[in-house]
Amino acid sequence: MAGFAADVQRVTVLGAGSWGTAFAKVLGDAGRDVTMWARRESVAEEIRERHTNESYLPGTTLPDRITATADAAEALDGAQAVVLGVPSQSLRANLSGWRPLLPSEAILVSLAKGVELGTLKRMSEVIAELADVDPGEIVVVSGPNLAREIADGQPAAAVLACADHERAKAVQQATSNQYFRPYTNTDVVGCELGGACKNVIALSCGMAAGMGLGANTMATLITRGLAEMARLGAKLGADPLTFAGLAGLGDLVATCSSPLSRNRTFGERLGRGETLAEAQAATGGQVAEGVASCSSIRELAQRHGADMPITDAMYRVCHEGVDPRQAGAELLGRSRKPEWR
Amino acid sequence: MAGFAADVQRVTVLGAGSWGTAFAKVLGDAGRDVTMWARRESVAEEIRERHTNESYLPGTTLPDRITATADAAEALDGAQAVVLGVPSQSLRANLSGWRPLLPSEAILVSLAKGVELGTLKRMSEVIAELADVDPGEIVVVSGPNLAREIADGQPAAAVLACADHERAKAVQQATSNQYFRPYTNTDVVGCELGGACKNVIALSCGMAAGMGLGANTMATLITRGLAEMARLGAKLGADPLTFAGLAGLGDLVATCSSPLSRNRTFGERLGRGETLAEAQAATGGQVAEGVASCSSIRELAQRHGADMPITDAMYRVCHEGVDPRQAGAELLGRSRKPEWR
Repeated sequence: MAGFAADVQRVTVLGAGSWGTAFAKVLGDAGRDVTMWARRESVAEEIRERHTNESYLPGTTLPDRITATADAAEALDGAQAVVLGVPSQSLRANLSGWRPLLPSEAILVSLAKGVELGTLKRMSEVIAELADVDPGEIVVVSGPNLAREIADGQPAAAVLACADHERAKAVQQATSNQYFRPYTNTDVVGCELGGACKNVIALSCGMAAGMGLGANTMATLITRGLAEMARLGAKLGADPLTFAGLAGLGDLVATCSSPLSRNRTFGERLGRGETLAEAQAATGGQVAEGVASCSSIRELAQRHGADMPITDAMYRVCHEGVDPRQAGAELLGRSRKPEWR
Repeated sequence: MAGFAADVQRVTVLGAGSWGTAFAKVLGDAGRDVTMWARRESVAEEIRERHTNESYLPGTTLPDRITATADAAEALDGAQAVVLGVPSQSLRANLSGWRPLLPSEAILVSLAKGVELGTLKRMSEVIAELADVDPGEIVVVSGPNLAREIADGQPAAAVLACADHERAKAVQQATSNQYFRPYTNTDVVGCELGGACKNVIALSCGMAAGMGLGANTMATLITRGLAEMARLGAKLGADPLTFAGLAGLGDLVATCSSPLSRNRTFGERLGRGETLAEAQAATGGQVAEGVASCSSIRELAQRHGADMPITDAMYRVCHEGVDPRQAGAELLGRSRKPEWR
């Protein structure tokens, strides 16, 4: 394993979306010097000059100690930790460009939640492959962490997962502040699966809400959704306790219940009868993470023999044109039996 | 054990609040003949004559096969199952009056959720004591079951818990209909604790919302709340799986996230700075179930050595006059006042 700084003071955040920006604010509010990389120079300039990122976190003033650039080499120079805050399905393309620029002793931190289409790799596996580092060195951030609320300084608990506890502790120290309380965990597999699967369940909760269904249905989807992600986790060696914790249940409930969640709101559109293309057009061309994830997670589940009926149903709605009402009826029509077989 | 009818056709529901009435509708829609008992003759007459219960389920039309009376003897005559739908803290007083009227072979079904003040008994224990039956014969109904949504015919999953699986199956058969899907479970202790404890956690979620906190905080309270009820359950012999299921997590999420939940809305008033007396006055003199339950559950936890910090905090707010903000800050483990005022 490479060495690393236990006392991380200089951090680079790659990606200036809402979570990348909110996480940069967490670091800044914890007294760290942060350089953000934004794909568009206009966003970098806005962060640098005006300390705002109105497109992603309107109304938030960022700490002065955050600067930004659209030049990745400049952003990465001297970083003791590098936070990867780009969408999961574009992480590979981005990271292959950044590979030569990564400081060799920087701790790599992943904010991405998803399972890569095609390879079926978790994000830390993609990072380890591209950056050519030991997967056990990568720190994964998870938990009930809606970016908007964290940017507002609301208290939030988070999980920092890394096989190497010392690295998780270094990131814990660099991110702890008055409102952000990170806990360490060594179960990277469980934390990443929880983070990826919850987007699919949030889609389903949104879809139910779009069909006019209330809290009973949402609670049932969350309960059965947690059970199905734990089944996948068991096949892949995750710790069952992780799913009962902040990175499993916590993240799932926050994402499924909040109107701020993109996956939930995207699902609501589908539930109201919009097609995938219509929902995508209405959200400025963005597709919710869960739409891609339901394909890759379903394939992963099939490969490992895990039963994931909600994920299957979402796949059929998103990628096979099945009507949400029919998918919902099929989910409810599963045979009557004791709750736990 | 007493005998019972496996094919339950005639059911009495004691109590005409929102859940009792919605459960009567479930039975009626499953083709059963239902007699409801209401404390007030005006309510009984309204149900009998107009098939509505506007005070508790406005806008709902009840099936014709539901009738009602304010005379308990008349209500109970010939019942094959008796559903107890009165508030948990008044169950003992009510049931002692009904004791001589209960048909000896009727299956007793509990809708009440709570732990009795003073005796610290679960509702099935109170019923078994008062009705002088084996506790293993009582069927407990739990799950994510907001009455309003069930009355609207939204699909809902429920749990019927009974040590005697045959009785649970009889009630399952009597309640299954197009929108209500009951699962059987033999863990009565876990289901009852889940149902009682969730009201306290819902109070805390409401309180956080009343203080302006969002989904991250709610998700954290739900996650830790589930953990603390599972700790109590472990001490009392409950099956840990129950808390991960519909009667644990499912009921908890539905109650904590819905604006229809009395415990949540009561907590919101406390979070906005109202006193217990003010909140009670504003809700027509009603006190949310969780206000009593936090006392009895806290005492039960102390007796059995289970650590329940959220329940403790709610007890201190409700019964010792501690400011919700201070209780919240203490829960977060901070010595100084947090940023969120």
